[in-house]
Amino acid sequence: MDDDTDCNLKLLLIICDGLGDRPVSELGGKTPLQYADCENFDWFAKNGICGIMDTIAPGVPPGSDTAHLALLGHDPYEVYSGRGPFEAFGIGMDVKAGDVVMRGNFATVDDDMTIIDRRAGRIKEGTKEIAESLNWIEIKGVEIFFKEGTEHRAALVLRGEGLSPEIDNTDPHRSGCCPLKAKPLSPAAEKTAAIVEEFSRKSYEILKDHPQNKRRESSGKLPANYILLRGAGVAPHLTSLEEKFGVKSAAVVGVMLVKGVCKALGMEAIEVQGATGGVDTDMMAKAKAAISALKNNDFVLLHVKACDIYGHDGDALKKVETIGRLDDMLGLLRDNISNTCVALTADHATPVSVRNHSGDPVPLAIVGQGIRIDSVSSYDEISTAQGGLGRIRGKDLLPIMLDIANKSEMYGA
Amino acid sequence: MDDDTDCNLKLLLIICDGLGDRPVSELGGKTPLQYADCENFDWFAKNGICGIMDTIAPGVPPGSDTAHLALLGHDPYEVYSGRGPFEAFGIGMDVKAGDVVMRGNFATVDDDMTIIDRRAGRIKEGTKEIAESLNWIEIKGVEIFFKEGTEHRAALVLRGEGLSPEIDNTDPHRSGCCPLKAKPLSPAAEKTAAIVEEFSRKSYEILKDHPQNKRRESSGKLPANYILLRGAGVAPHLTSLEEKFGVKSAAVVGVMLVKGVCKALGMEAIEVQGATGGVDTDMMAKAKAAISALKNNDFVLLHVKACDIYGHDGDALKKVETIGRLDDMLGLLRDNISNTCVALTADHATPVSVRNHSGDPVPLAIVGQGIRIDSVSSYDEISTAQGGLGRIRGKDLLPIMLDIANKSEMYGA
Repeated sequence: MDDDTDCNLKLLLIICDGLGDRPVSELGGKTPLQYADCENFDWFAKNGICGIMDTIAPGVPPGSDTAHLALLGHDPYEVYSGRGPFEAFGIGMDVKAGDVVMRGNFATVDDDMTIIDRRAGRIKEGTKEIAESLNWIEIKGVEIFFKEGTEHRAALVLRGEGLSPEIDNTDPHRSGCCPLKAKPLSPAAEKTAAIVEEFSRKSYEILKDHPQNKRRESSGKLPANYILLRGAGVAPHLTSLEEKFGVKSAAVVGVMLVKGVCKALGMEAIEVQGATGGVDTDMMAKAKAAISALKNNDFVLLHVKACDIYGHDGDALKKVETIGRLDDMLGLLRDNISNTCVALTADHATPVSVRNHSGDPVPLAIVGQGIRIDSVSSYDEISTAQGGLGRIRGKDLLPIMLDIANKSEMYGA
Repeated sequence: MDDDTDCNLKLLLIICDGLGDRPVSELGGKTPLQYADCENFDWFAKNGICGIMDTIAPGVPPGSDTAHLALLGHDPYEVYSGRGPFEAFGIGMDVKAGDVVMRGNFATVDDDMTIIDRRAGRIKEGTKEIAESLNWIEIKGVEIFFKEGTEHRAALVLRGEGLSPEIDNTDPHRSGCCPLKAKPLSPAAEKTAAIVEEFSRKSYEILKDHPQNKRRESSGKLPANYILLRGAGVAPHLTSLEEKFGVKSAAVVGVMLVKGVCKALGMEAIEVQGATGGVDTDMMAKAKAAISALKNNDFVLLHVKACDIYGHDGDALKKVETIGRLDDMLGLLRDNISNTCVALTADHATPVSVRNHSGDPVPLAIVGQGIRIDSVSSYDEISTAQGGLGRIRGKDLLPIMLDIANKSEMYGA
């Protein structure tokens, strides 16, 4: 990295999903970051200012959506109301504030309306055509938008006056029974529940004879003849990063829910060949895409999922190995980025001993021109706590980065 | 302590009241904690993660009530409205949200209604019978509850519609004058002031001829024939620890006001023989009670008062000596607790140079399985500031402990 020039410093935020951890007895009481040989992670610590960060608040395990809302400068306690709207953003729907959004599954029911398979035989193809046919459904007083996600996943957007997200799931989360009625959880949601009920009925009428399903059945596959709905949420009013911070921004991210948060905040989502959102993701391709995106953007988010998955699996050695791969990716970034303020952190800890997100603070290092370099020389959960940043909140990170890049605005006179 | 097992980690919060201090010239510029020889305090620092904590907020000297509200996961700025309700909880009254509560003194007035003694000759016996007689008082539009505390102390609870805590004290805080009229401090409090005035009059009518007072007078003691009232507050709506955090909890605490906070949050208050809430308290008995309480509870608070008293007295050497006694208590706890996350801290500093609570942050160490042990090796105000926790707020401590014990809930998806 070359930090000799100071005009128009760019910003790169690298999120290693689930990177943080706790001491692991299998690793001799070290955390995976302490155990791994990670020269480039440590380079960021040595050449930057370090700290620890509560993405949401001390002791609060963040979700992927709330964590990224915070890391993108928004207070999740103010703007978050459920994952549905962000899933819909993630799959490319044009969600507006106030829309009620539900996640959907393409499912299979038999003639008695008994659920045979909640995922329609793990359907992969033809969902675009099936989803499109449901956009023709007309229900009085509401606009209907339906779109497929990956595989059996989809989202339903309801737009209109007097809608409420206070409705129960129609998805019973098991097969062998009927889909549930859309039950209102408050009197204000009776209209919405009736709409969802009507959508369920009308969509079944369309899907049971859909050409794609006829084709599936003739080749021995389960038809996608019912839409199971769950997780109703209302889309919040969000201020885009451009509006809030005056930056043009892009995101390199494979995970649909995180992509949805980025899109909801007006970031360009950059598609990368080989970026799967899984352990097999092509990290180098993602890093190259981030480098490229920095040319046309002020701020780029680079999100890599793999560590989180091994945290959930409780696999310490695989997590260590993944940190090694991330370290290689960081080497590529170091060699190919100049004139950029880079923050290296995680959205949350996924300790292998917990096998889930925890509320432990995550390590953080920020490098870039003008940084107050501290004495921390190792990038891990314990060393970075000694750093010059102290302990900060996730929602403060982007303002700090913007200020380092002289893109902040004075408050007061 | 043995941390080999991980299922259902218990929580123990040890509060050494007023432990924090400032450098004392008499101690060669050391704080009492730095000066004292305290092997067990240091063991917590060496084997845990350390930090400093602003119980309420930086620079704000906490009261005993507000400090414990914060340490029990509540924002005192949101829920606190005066000590009265917590005193009443402490002496075992069943206070409900919205009740107006005043602290009372059993006092002595002469026939001209001049206060002879604000504490009725430091009355100790017979207050239960005297208090009971006042529960028969009937005042239109309000329910009256009156109960004795320790010695001359008591509490009055008013329950009904349209009550306000905006009334001045009837206690002039000196003798040789008449009790004050219950003055409304806002127009909304006129009804309440009239009720308090009526209570004062009717209670005097009952007390002046009360058999207990006749007996006192015949044995040369001052009668408790008047109730001086002060510190009106409205009982806040509080969420119990069980409801808010899903933990069954108990408190080992002698100080009535702190006990009241614990009871108000639904904690079981455990009575301990020899626990006086004073410098002579039996710390070992309290520690044993806490160890025992951990068997049937998820979370136990152990509060020991003595250090605070010597802080108020400005007695550095006695404070050092008390730290030594606390250190022995910690040794007992170390040897007899397993599978528990233990936080060792104070509710506030009571520097001997200040002789009162100060807003200095307090030291904190947390030990337990999965802890990110840092390099701090001495438990004192300055060393712990170098620790892996950084600087936290009191209200974040319990969420952090719950997260370490994997009892936290994810926010988001």
